[in-house]
Amino acid sequence: MAVWGERLAGVRGVLLDISGVLFDGCTGGGVPIPGSVEAVARLKQSHLKVRFCTNESQKSRGKLVGLLQRLGFDISEGEVTSPAPAACQILKEQGLRPHLLVHDEILSEFDKIDTSNPNCVLIADAGDAFSYKNMNKAFQLLMELENPVLISLGKGRYYKETSGLMLDVGAYMKALEYACGIEAKVVGKPSPEFFKNALQVLGVEAHQAIMIGDDIVGDVGGAQRCGMRALQVRTGKFRPSDEHHPEVKADGYVDNLAEAVDLLLQHVDK
Amino acid sequence: MAVWGERLAGVRGVLLDISGVLFDGCTGGGVPIPGSVEAVARLKQSHLKVRFCTNESQKSRGKLVGLLQRLGFDISEGEVTSPAPAACQILKEQGLRPHLLVHDEILSEFDKIDTSNPNCVLIADAGDAFSYKNMNKAFQLLMELENPVLISLGKGRYYKETSGLMLDVGAYMKALEYACGIEAKVVGKPSPEFFKNALQVLGVEAHQAIMIGDDIVGDVGGAQRCGMRALQVRTGKFRPSDEHHPEVKADGYVDNLAEAVDLLLQHVDK
Repeated sequence: MAVWGERLAGVRGVLLDISGVLFDGCTGGGVPIPGSVEAVARLKQSHLKVRFCTNESQKSRGKLVGLLQRLGFDISEGEVTSPAPAACQILKEQGLRPHLLVHDEILSEFDKIDTSNPNCVLIADAGDAFSYKNMNKAFQLLMELENPVLISLGKGRYYKETSGLMLDVGAYMKALEYACGIEAKVVGKPSPEFFKNALQVLGVEAHQAIMIGDDIVGDVGGAQRCGMRALQVRTGKFRPSDEHHPEVKADGYVDNLAEAVDLLLQHVDK
Repeated sequence: MAVWGERLAGVRGVLLDISGVLFDGCTGGGVPIPGSVEAVARLKQSHLKVRFCTNESQKSRGKLVGLLQRLGFDISEGEVTSPAPAACQILKEQGLRPHLLVHDEILSEFDKIDTSNPNCVLIADAGDAFSYKNMNKAFQLLMELENPVLISLGKGRYYKETSGLMLDVGAYMKALEYACGIEAKVVGKPSPEFFKNALQVLGVEAHQAIMIGDDIVGDVGGAQRCGMRALQVRTGKFRPSDEHHPEVKADGYVDNLAEAVDLLLQHVDK
């Protein structure tokens, strides 16, 4: 189809979302989305540059990569752009000492961060740690600060586990924003800085890159606003209504990562 | 002061907020705000009509009134407009069967409501019941409905207990609104229907009524949008910045309910 040839012309680099594109998570593990292990391998054997760009904030980057390797994926920690390391850099640059409302599994990412006498709140996909008590503590701390700073690792509405859709950090970010009358700083997709950082490491310009994700707003809309192209896969949190989203239209919709890679390898100029 | 005479001219009925105006709550009870017990008594002995208008949704109306009576207030259940009974009427009228995410203490208000095979979600100030698990269940149910209906008993940002500020139902309403891409129906202040119902029972027109509350948006702004006047007390959740709120300006700010009642009894036409 000529249309795909036009849509994919000049692509030199690919950013891949992880959850819902490579695998669906579940308590204690996950299952690969059919065809995705082979699709990643084929993509990495091609002339295209590949980087993984995730908002995963319930596991450290090391644990996430370890899980993916056990599922059969060819992936290493250095190939992954994830929000916790990006947030640590911002915390250090701005002299911020966070109160952390995060999952235990990601605490290790903040080992070298001073968390004494907090002057900001950082939230991530904390799962069951989003108790009323913990939310109230974060709220009270923000209300006591003269300049309340709330950092959110992503602002996803929900994600998909094998057991069903799960509330993501964005919902709790909105709760604290409303209660405190503030606006959070989002570190992760769809923040432009986050995509730009991934592109810089990848070494391609935005117009030469394509994002493949399952989130019509966070992945597709965010990447397009940075000047990239973006495909939405019909896996993970994809819902049929996404193809008629009032604000975001992907450059293409594909059944899964395997189909996206087929199209890329078939149509992108060698 | 002539200015108060003008501000209060023609007032015939008074709506009183309860939490933060009559008393400050705490786990298992509460303490009266100094002067409020006597202020309510004086107001009820005057020629002014009085009704209580609360968003309390952590206790049933009966339990709230019982607590207030034990604290010394002259108040009966029939004098209180509260959101749970109003919500029950809407549920019945619209054939809605709610999944309830509420505090155990208020469950009895829904005794006569069919909650089988839910076709909507109703949330109230659930306190510790706002766990991730319970929020996720409400979220998943809404996402499964073709026309998701979320009813929220009030949309307060926070309230004050003796131990400090506490996140209110509005924060969790915002979380579910964002995650599901919907807008909740608010039953309670600042919904105009709620104020109008209270005025109707009181038997006065909006322009003859004044609201006294500690919430600049929910009490003061809501009442003013209905054509009432409104005073903010500097007790409960009041914060100094409320007096410079970008959108709402009270008809007057008073230190507490006792001062409000002094002014009313002094300046309102006999």
